Amino acid sequence: MQEDGPVSRFGTVELDDLPDDLRQRLAPIVEKSGFMPNIFRALGRRPAELRAFLDYHDALMDSDVGLSKAERELVVVATSGANDCPYCVVAHGAILRIRSKEPEIADLVAVNPRGCDLAPRQRAIVDLALLLCEDPASVGEPDLQAARDAGLTDDEIWDVGSITALFAASNRLAHLFALRPNPEFFAMGR
Amino acid sequence: MQEDGPVSRFGTVELDDLPDDLRQRLAPIVEKSGFMPNIFRALGRRPAELRAFLDYHDALMDSDVGLSKAERELVVVATSGANDCPYCVVAHGAILRIRSKEPEIADLVAVNPRGCDLAPRQRAIVDLALLLCEDPASVGEPDLQAARDAGLTDDEIWDVGSITALFAASNRLAHLFALRPNPEFFAMGR
Amino acid sequence: MQEDGPVSRFGTVELDDLPDDLRQRLAPIVEKSGFMPNIFRALGRRPAELRAFLDYHDALMDSDVGLSKAERELVVVATSGANDCPYCVVAHGAILRIRSKEPEIADLVAVNPRGCDLAPRQRAIVDLALLLCEDPASVGEPDLQAARDAGLTDDEIWDVGSITALFAASNRLAHLFALRPNPEFFAMGR
Amino acid sequence: MQEDGPVSRFGTVELDDLPDDLRQRLAPIVEKSGFMPNIFRALGRRPAELRAFLDYHDALMDSDVGLSKAERELVVVATSGANDCPYCVVAHGAILRIRSKEPEIADLVAVNPRGCDLAPRQRAIVDLALLLCEDPASVGEPDLQAARDAGLTDDEIWDVGSITALFAASNRLAHLFALRPNPEFFAMGR
Amino acid sequence: MQEDGPVSRFGTVELDDLPDDLRQRLAPIVEKSGFMPNIFRALGRRPAELRAFLDYHDALMDSDVGLSKAERELVVVATSGANDCPYCVVAHGAILRIRSKEPEIADLVAVNPRGCDLAPRQRAIVDLALLLCEDPASVGEPDLQAARDAGLTDDEIWDVGSITALFAASNRLAHLFALRPNPEFFAMGR
Amino acid sequence: MQEDGPVSRFGTVELDDLPDDLRQRLAPIVEKSGFMPNIFRALGRRPAELRAFLDYHDALMDSDVGLSKAERELVVVATSGANDCPYCVVAHGAILRIRSKEPEIADLVAVNPRGCDLAPRQRAIVDLALLLCEDPASVGEPDLQAARDAGLTDDEIWDVGSITALFAASNRLAHLFALRPNPEFFAMGR
Repeated sequence: MQEDGPVSRFGTVELDDLPDDLRQRLAPIVEKSGFMPNIFRALGRRPAELRAFLDYHDALMDSDVGLSKAERELVVVATSGANDCPYCVVAHGAILRIRSKEPEIADLVAVNPRGCDLAPRQRAIVDLALLLCEDPASVGEPDLQAARDAGLTDDEIWDVGSITALFAASNRLAHLFALRPNPEFFAMGR
Repeated sequence: MQEDGPVSRFGTVELDDLPDDLRQRLAPIVEKSGFMPNIFRALGRRPAELRAFLDYHDALMDSDVGLSKAERELVVVATSGANDCPYCVVAHGAILRIRSKEPEIADLVAVNPRGCDLAPRQRAIVDLALLLCEDPASVGEPDLQAARDAGLTDDEIWDVGSITALFAASNRLAHLFALRPNPEFFAMGR
Repeated sequence: MQEDGPVSRFGTVELDDLPDDLRQRLAPIVEKSGFMPNIFRALGRRPAELRAFLDYHDALMDSDVGLSKAERELVVVATSGANDCPYCVVAHGAILRIRSKEPEIADLVAVNPRGCDLAPRQRAIVDLALLLCEDPASVGEPDLQAARDAGLTDDEIWDVGSITALFAASNRLAHLFALRPNPEFFAMGR
Repeated sequence: MQEDGPVSRFGTVELDDLPDDLRQRLAPIVEKSGFMPNIFRALGRRPAELRAFLDYHDALMDSDVGLSKAERELVVVATSGANDCPYCVVAHGAILRIRSKEPEIADLVAVNPRGCDLAPRQRAIVDLALLLCEDPASVGEPDLQAARDAGLTDDEIWDVGSITALFAASNRLAHLFALRPNPEFFAMGR
Repeated sequence: MQEDGPVSRFGTVELDDLPDDLRQRLAPIVEKSGFMPNIFRALGRRPAELRAFLDYHDALMDSDVGLSKAERELVVVATSGANDCPYCVVAHGAILRIRSKEPEIADLVAVNPRGCDLAPRQRAIVDLALLLCEDPASVGEPDLQAARDAGLTDDEIWDVGSITALFAASNRLAHLFALRPNPEFFAMGR
Repeated sequence: MQEDGPVSRFGTVELDDLPDDLRQRLAPIVEKSGFMPNIFRALGRRPAELRAFLDYHDALMDSDVGLSKAERELVVVATSGANDCPYCVVAHGAILRIRSKEPEIADLVAVNPRGCDLAPRQRAIVDLALLLCEDPASVGEPDLQAARDAGLTDDEIWDVGSITALFAASNRLAHLFALRPNPEFFAMGR
């Protein structure tokens, strides 16, 4: 590997460079995990965009109503794997390991999201997410019906679709930035 | 065509159904255009997501610093065309016609974004947007350098990339919803 | 947009430059529409090819036996959209609007032919056309049976297939020529 | 192999079933080769379409001005190989062997048109043909310039493009018909 | 064609250059066919690799238990056609013609493996082979069940899969070497 | 995850079930690593194929002449990632971490082999391997020259190509078997 590449092509900021509201919002995360995730350091160069991103993220990821938190992370890892996004696979792979308490799931889902061995409900979630991720124009009624047949409510289908959409954006930002995963993420939850 | 399909697979709300802040924010848009764009009616079923979406949208689309507003819409129409998204092509095609004062550009860009006849700066903007849209993992230094060689600053490159990312999400939401364009958009600005 | 590009990379001819039979054949079209469609000006540089093209076109497009004329144009717009062909989408989009008396259909079909909301017979026509357009080697008995199940006769299936084949050629000629749509087409029939 | 499949899914006609002009036009070909090529038997069910097809074919394939006849067949075999079209590969492969006097070329070009070992002029012809065949919207000035740099005139480029376009149609008709190659073609010219 | 290209980009050896065991193993093949197949001349530059390749090949191709020898060659020609590999298509096409006693099958399978007209058991063999060849991650239980429904045992499915795997390697070696088919193969068995 | 899936769709054998030569060959590996890698348990059901596979593997992977052992594993992880093969990514990812002494490299290469940040020689190795893995017919002289320009000898290029070829086979076998990675691999070398 090259040792000396930057965290982001467009530079970074630190927690103290952020506006008050963002600093107060992110400080507990940084404290709890012991490091500042690089997505905040990169996107923080434009506070309005970071703020909107965090609002969207929290609306979708910080809820247990409908999809479990582990299922939400499963959508992120599967679609980020399909998009070949190292930052999101490594960072959310760590979170998925922690939330699911399954040490192998993140690697297996990231490498082969369509073929990995999942329970039927998880398989339906991942299949819908991958279709919307990779071939969004082809999503049709039969695909939604397959998700309903696996027990998902329409609100849960919305969750799957919206998380997929948000990370379609995140993966592209990470690729634009050539964003490096923090080294701490690699071994978390194993 | 089928005449009786819904505006969105997941139902819609009207302006009066929205929380106060969103109603006050969208009312001037509805008043000015004479209709409520269907994306607000569909996404408004989840106010927190609509609010974050609008914040992200306004941070990227309502600025003339760097990219002109017409150039921002050009990114939207080109990438939404590449994603086969009827709502975004029709709605933002109308806005692009109005902002660029060019009645043919939206149709030509939506049908053939890679081949349409653009000025060199616009071509560089569209090429970078399409690459990040369709094959995000392949974006590398040579692609950013090509954009710089066409005169784009790094801040403008960030704009191109972030708008592409936001509409990667929007296009997927519109496909998830099977969102219908409002009939008023089709003939605007021709 | 670039303002000064040519109509065709290989030059053009005018009505008076054509051999007598072609001039007499095209004059009524030019008179009725008020302009000479650019495909005639470009392909007219080789009269034998223009003549054969017109013969093939008229044998397939100027008939109401089996497929209606609007359905024939639907095949053209759907496959030309799939082939990203601006000339054929814009010119035949105008004709489709006029023949179908539906102002929105051409834009919706061109942007998203697989997902747009069509009646079952029209959906079957477009699905077969797209398959033959994009992946011709995969057309098999089940695909023909699906068309028959939607009520198409074998003669109508031949029509769908032959129109798709002819415009596979036309779209490629238009891309080879970098053929510009006449400005009159954009707003016709809206 | 299945032994009893039909020549065409839509039936066939024989020479004597054709209108006078077509019968007189095709009789010398049938006499010379000793059999009636199946494309005539299949497409002859619609004489107007067969007539236009033959006119287009003869305008492009029966000339030595510019491209040699062997080069014209090279375009057919390369693009028909790319389109996985057995009828056109087998029938025109035979013609290419005869016209080029090279017994190996047709198989090598059909299997691997991009990689087979051709002289620079033939390579330029095949590369342009394949691009227009497989990704027509991407044909741009640099591609035409590469052909010119290999010595092709603009008239020769038009030939390459038009032959590619005509066989984009022919290949699709043959796939629609599930057209069987006449057994005589397989060993001709070896 | 270019006349003077090498047999392999990395040079070749002759029978007498090989270690004793390989020379004694290949001599009967060379004697029987009257020429030394070029894959041996190219891969023989590294005897350990040639030895392992021959061991794997013989374990899979020289058996009539389960799949017939013609069916084994069918897998090779279909997947080598899908991989655009001239050496394997031409060499194993000859063997397939000889083993199947069908002079047309190799050309038809190589050009259009998915669409060619096969008996149901052969179609099931080819479909499974192509899926594993082209999209290996998508092979799932339904694909294996389809093979079983067409009468294949699990041992025969393993054969289909392992032959496909071995020629996934062979095709890549042949492309790496730009390996020329021996001229003798083209007309064998016609 | 599903907990109770089998190691291989086609069953497994244990060390003691193998013929003497294979048992003696694999026993030291099993002893050293503390477990029997599942590929041996699955492929061992056919000893002749396992023996040939091991011979090919050892000829290519157990050498430091030319490519280093870490570089050889880099080819495996990059192409197995491109082929979405969980067994090979997880097992050889562990070996790569151990041989390279870089704990992050395997995850980054597996997720995004084209974009990960490598030294120029490693980048050239991975680029050639990916091309031969994913689009073998397109490998041409310019690709080999690019490898030479990065300092690779022709023998090293052969190594890159042959390792890619061997794992094109291995990845397909693992997908055919739905082969599970041993749990021990996931955390090795982190």
